[in-house]
Amino acid sequence: MVVRSGSKKAGRKRRPLILVSNDDGIRARGLLVLMRRLKELGRVVAVVPQQQQSASSHSITLHRPLRMEKLGRDVYGVDGTPTDCIMLGIHEILHTRPNLIVSGINHGANLGDDVHYSGTVSAAVEGGVLGIPSIAVSLVTDGRGEFAAAADFAVRLARKVLNYGLTKGVILNVNVPDLPARSIAGYEFTRLGKRDYGNIIVEKVDPRGKKYYWIGGDHHNFEDIINSDCNAVRAGKISITPLRVNLTARDTLKKMIHWKL
Amino acid sequence: MVVRSGSKKAGRKRRPLILVSNDDGIRARGLLVLMRRLKELGRVVAVVPQQQQSASSHSITLHRPLRMEKLGRDVYGVDGTPTDCIMLGIHEILHTRPNLIVSGINHGANLGDDVHYSGTVSAAVEGGVLGIPSIAVSLVTDGRGEFAAAADFAVRLARKVLNYGLTKGVILNVNVPDLPARSIAGYEFTRLGKRDYGNIIVEKVDPRGKKYYWIGGDHHNFEDIINSDCNAVRAGKISITPLRVNLTARDTLKKMIHWKL
Repeated sequence: MVVRSGSKKAGRKRRPLILVSNDDGIRARGLLVLMRRLKELGRVVAVVPQQQQSASSHSITLHRPLRMEKLGRDVYGVDGTPTDCIMLGIHEILHTRPNLIVSGINHGANLGDDVHYSGTVSAAVEGGVLGIPSIAVSLVTDGRGEFAAAADFAVRLARKVLNYGLTKGVILNVNVPDLPARSIAGYEFTRLGKRDYGNIIVEKVDPRGKKYYWIGGDHHNFEDIINSDCNAVRAGKISITPLRVNLTARDTLKKMIHWKL
Repeated sequence: MVVRSGSKKAGRKRRPLILVSNDDGIRARGLLVLMRRLKELGRVVAVVPQQQQSASSHSITLHRPLRMEKLGRDVYGVDGTPTDCIMLGIHEILHTRPNLIVSGINHGANLGDDVHYSGTVSAAVEGGVLGIPSIAVSLVTDGRGEFAAAADFAVRLARKVLNYGLTKGVILNVNVPDLPARSIAGYEFTRLGKRDYGNIIVEKVDPRGKKYYWIGGDHHNFEDIINSDCNAVRAGKISITPLRVNLTARDTLKKMIHWKL
């Protein structure tokens, strides 16, 4: 498959190539809105899980082969995880590195520690590992959600990143309040917040008297931390959190050199 | 379930409580060796996936309930991921925070960028998110593996961490070469290395002429980076890499404040 899109505008030889994925699957409204809007900036290729993959984190499929299906022009479905989609998208569809990866728009928040569980964020982290500028976008909603303002902001941010790039190994995690554009109180560059840990396990008993467990509980309480993504969203603002894909704790490493084991 | 173990030694009121998990499942030899050896340090409670969960990363099970089965004294099996196990272990088995979490001993390396995919490392990261000192231990082997030296080192390191603690929000990722103890060239505090990116997708064709894909390829090439975990293991050393669980890219954040969108 050829990478360079045929540009409709003479003189502009290469339109940016944008790889899109998500973790809510191919039929998610957030994805469709995002794809439509990103086409203002370049050629958009979507490689997306065919099933809901929320909380799939950065998992990859190693124990069975993957299938990929062409679903339309520049749209592919994969029976795997968001990270599988990024890998297949780059190596089997694009055969080159895209100029940008955008993951989302996720149906639901990816704030604070929850970024660890998120398939949407992990797709962007995989981009960061590969050195490709990458953005994850989530709409903070429990319901149907209004994606227009989030898509609008995604395009603004994507344009900026295409023009100016991103520090290598850093991705952007964006959370947009579920409000009409006019009610959003601007944006803020933030750090990750912190979940308020209650008991997140719900215990139930089945008709045969055996226990089973749901992971759930209340994920909506966060500590009050100044300049955190959680605080920004609570204040009606869009949060933009830069995340490092290299997890080395450099400060601790310097101190550990003196450990004797 | 009561947390404080009945100590056999009068005067020592509380033996450390150590929660163990892994991603290779309950029958993995690395787990059994680790559990046996850690009992030298305290009470060991294992909450472990009943199935192989390699490359499950930090995924959690949200779309179906989980079952947990008592398999022996202080040993539980869960039909979920390593992170599910940590959550259930703390909230439903221990009902308190353990003094230490040890995840492993993984059958296979977890070096460089691959920490993102690893269920073993993610179980320790979940501990770090909860503020519990946590260690992931992996044996760098493709074959059967010799776990004695790795278990030995895990105990040494665990004792140190129990005595001196760890910086909050930092976990340790340990990789041990698959060598007899006498052939291991010591240990080194390291940073994460970097995978050498070739095409990691293997394309095949099924008997009906349809393509399918394996994620695999050669994961064994790493860039030559001084003081990296990959280099240390290559040199026959045990690598110990401190990892931050808070992903905020603080340096980039400072610079981004000046972005105008």
